[in-house]
Amino acid sequence: MSEFFGTFLLVLGGVGTALFAANFPSDTDNQSGVGFLGVALAFGLTLVAGIAAVGHISGGHFNPAVTLGLLAAGRTDLKHVPGYIVSQVLGGLAATSIIAIVLSGKTGAFQAAHDAGFASNGYGSASPGGYGLGAVFLTEAVLTGVFLAVILSITAKQEYQALAPIGIGLTLTLIHLVSIPVSNTSVNPARSIAAAVYGGDTPLAQLWVFIVAPIVGALVAGLIVRVGGRRRITG
Amino acid sequence: MSEFFGTFLLVLGGVGTALFAANFPSDTDNQSGVGFLGVALAFGLTLVAGIAAVGHISGGHFNPAVTLGLLAAGRTDLKHVPGYIVSQVLGGLAATSIIAIVLSGKTGAFQAAHDAGFASNGYGSASPGGYGLGAVFLTEAVLTGVFLAVILSITAKQEYQALAPIGIGLTLTLIHLVSIPVSNTSVNPARSIAAAVYGGDTPLAQLWVFIVAPIVGALVAGLIVRVGGRRRITG
Amino acid sequence: MSEFFGTFLLVLGGVGTALFAANFPSDTDNQSGVGFLGVALAFGLTLVAGIAAVGHISGGHFNPAVTLGLLAAGRTDLKHVPGYIVSQVLGGLAATSIIAIVLSGKTGAFQAAHDAGFASNGYGSASPGGYGLGAVFLTEAVLTGVFLAVILSITAKQEYQALAPIGIGLTLTLIHLVSIPVSNTSVNPARSIAAAVYGGDTPLAQLWVFIVAPIVGALVAGLIVRVGGRRRITG
Amino acid sequence: MSEFFGTFLLVLGGVGTALFAANFPSDTDNQSGVGFLGVALAFGLTLVAGIAAVGHISGGHFNPAVTLGLLAAGRTDLKHVPGYIVSQVLGGLAATSIIAIVLSGKTGAFQAAHDAGFASNGYGSASPGGYGLGAVFLTEAVLTGVFLAVILSITAKQEYQALAPIGIGLTLTLIHLVSIPVSNTSVNPARSIAAAVYGGDTPLAQLWVFIVAPIVGALVAGLIVRVGGRRRITG
Repeated sequence: MSEFFGTFLLVLGGVGTALFAANFPSDTDNQSGVGFLGVALAFGLTLVAGIAAVGHISGGHFNPAVTLGLLAAGRTDLKHVPGYIVSQVLGGLAATSIIAIVLSGKTGAFQAAHDAGFASNGYGSASPGGYGLGAVFLTEAVLTGVFLAVILSITAKQEYQALAPIGIGLTLTLIHLVSIPVSNTSVNPARSIAAAVYGGDTPLAQLWVFIVAPIVGALVAGLIVRVGGRRRITG
Repeated sequence: MSEFFGTFLLVLGGVGTALFAANFPSDTDNQSGVGFLGVALAFGLTLVAGIAAVGHISGGHFNPAVTLGLLAAGRTDLKHVPGYIVSQVLGGLAATSIIAIVLSGKTGAFQAAHDAGFASNGYGSASPGGYGLGAVFLTEAVLTGVFLAVILSITAKQEYQALAPIGIGLTLTLIHLVSIPVSNTSVNPARSIAAAVYGGDTPLAQLWVFIVAPIVGALVAGLIVRVGGRRRITG
Repeated sequence: MSEFFGTFLLVLGGVGTALFAANFPSDTDNQSGVGFLGVALAFGLTLVAGIAAVGHISGGHFNPAVTLGLLAAGRTDLKHVPGYIVSQVLGGLAATSIIAIVLSGKTGAFQAAHDAGFASNGYGSASPGGYGLGAVFLTEAVLTGVFLAVILSITAKQEYQALAPIGIGLTLTLIHLVSIPVSNTSVNPARSIAAAVYGGDTPLAQLWVFIVAPIVGALVAGLIVRVGGRRRITG
Repeated sequence: MSEFFGTFLLVLGGVGTALFAANFPSDTDNQSGVGFLGVALAFGLTLVAGIAAVGHISGGHFNPAVTLGLLAAGRTDLKHVPGYIVSQVLGGLAATSIIAIVLSGKTGAFQAAHDAGFASNGYGSASPGGYGLGAVFLTEAVLTGVFLAVILSITAKQEYQALAPIGIGLTLTLIHLVSIPVSNTSVNPARSIAAAVYGGDTPLAQLWVFIVAPIVGALVAGLIVRVGGRRRITG
């Protein structure tokens, strides 16, 4: 339940901001919209709120790649993994479903969001800045690895417990600041699945990249920290 | 008194930023204005400041929906509720009255703000993005429910006491990032009343939505947490 | 020394951002500049940094109005007040002098900044949005009063010690978000003096407003908290 | 290793945001890009994340000027200095190398970034705002000195341990808010070296400024705090 709620909040806040508020009004240069900076803050702040709210129950992953990276690092029990991942995917889908219902309350808005990919992740012509598959895969894998490294390091120290939600959330903001133009930023398969379901053929066809690349990055980071970290934790 | 001061601060900061600074200068594309992002930050930062300043006295609701949601969750005594809500509504009105006086110090500014709705909440043609009643009601109810869920979860844990003002405030920023284009974001009947009084006929006619929807969302969230939370708090 | 350093940092960061970065490049609509939002964040973040750095030595006022408000509230010893205020004014002047030297390193930049008022505070035609004297005085007095109320409340509680720098700094950001278009935001006579010295005749002629109004607001808030606060602190 | 990772994160986040996201799309006034404000936040948030993640191992310098300033202040052992600086320079280069690979995944993007200086620091025609050598040197030295003064003060107090990553990171954001238009903001030789290597002849020819000026500022601040600080630390 807490993984469902947290991922629901993450996708509602992040994808919702991208679809409702990033570019507003969309037909003029005199922008009040929040731009990529607002989207980056929204993703990070959902994570601050979510971890602070329910992080003490499940650990506050809200992200299958994080769950698998923590498993690789020996920080999560294998028996929790399937339930966590199912809850995360369902929570994300619940959020994009709410967003779809709200968009349906404005004439033409759902269709326009669908045609623009529903804030899905993508490469090639579906990348905001037109970056190719290799660049997008590398970006997603490296940034998810960095994300896991920060999560694993912050949560390893008892004295940083109060800082952990802010530190981890702001790291997600940072990741979005760097990479929205490259891949629209996934680092989270549950977020990518939730958007792609409403985004049409291209996002669904490219979805595998945003499942595989974050998980590869997370597993590598988790294993590196597991091997290197014994000394560190006891040090 | 502390609920009066906190709601005064919230409305002065949030509605004041929306009216003075969101779109500046209003007649050119070369914007220095703070946009929706600045308004979202202003609402959140007022709450950080308000809770940090007086949250230990009254709990720092500054919002009738929050007070009622906490009542539903069994976290506030019924005897405090009427006084809190009256203080919140008066605090909000004091803030918009100050804003109205300041606007009167610039030729035509009060009339222009009045004609534009005085940063009131609205649906249909009064929604910034033109979203209909159903979409706006759903958005307000869901986001207020999420807000209550975060508040109830963060404040349930003693070790997050220092984090609570920041976590709750940033959640309000997040809620505004998502939903300013949809409903101009209420999630707070006191904020909606305070603006509508200076906003003319349409905001007053639509005001019931921004009283009912946030309260419905808050009550549902409060009841869910009450039922589900016994295990959690003792766990 | 710590009041000198803190006010130096505040004015260097805040006024520096306003002059170097708010509107960049200044001759095109395709802005990379940080706008009023960036200036608001800069003022707030200097205060977070300054209080965190040297707040334990002098209390971290960096502002004559704050020093006098704390005196009115009975929280600062009268014997410290003259030295603090002199240090604050000198620290602010040192910061604008550095800014003036840097501007002199770009052809025409110092003259342009001087002609535009050097980010001074003002009313009437010197107000960014053209607000009159009454509106500007009211805004400065009310917001300085709110600032003092937050400072006095946060610092009264021992458990918020770690939160105080962030809470107080973000409140200053909030104050700037609301009021840059009204008065260019002073709430701090040392900041206003430091800018006016390089801003020419109009800022100097209007300077009294940004000395008197913040101090009036601070004194009123300090006295209210002193009278009302005995119960609160012991409660 | 922790200095390598931290500097890698700092340069990946900060320079990456500058190159990918600051100005997007680059050919229209209807900007979704994050501007200088987003770049300033990215540099600061990497530092929050990096210090929170690995600051307890090496201290979290990620910057040769910081390492040398702490040495001057008597807070770092001379024997660690060479290894730290080598790790920092290599970490920065690893980050810009990743960025270069990602840019190569979009036709023409690497060449365009190279021709624009690859977000390097510069003076004269290579300064974003056209500031001369003297102004740039002064800015870099003063701001690095301020940065060291904040770092040394915050880390001297045990009770601010939880606040240190946020306070130091937000100070770096502030420094960027002020000075991106002046020098594109270095205050960190490792960051300047990492960008200049991919930025062509002008950044390499001017690189000495962004090695010498930050180190001068840091050493002066470190020595001042060392002399003045004995009383303070024991006080």
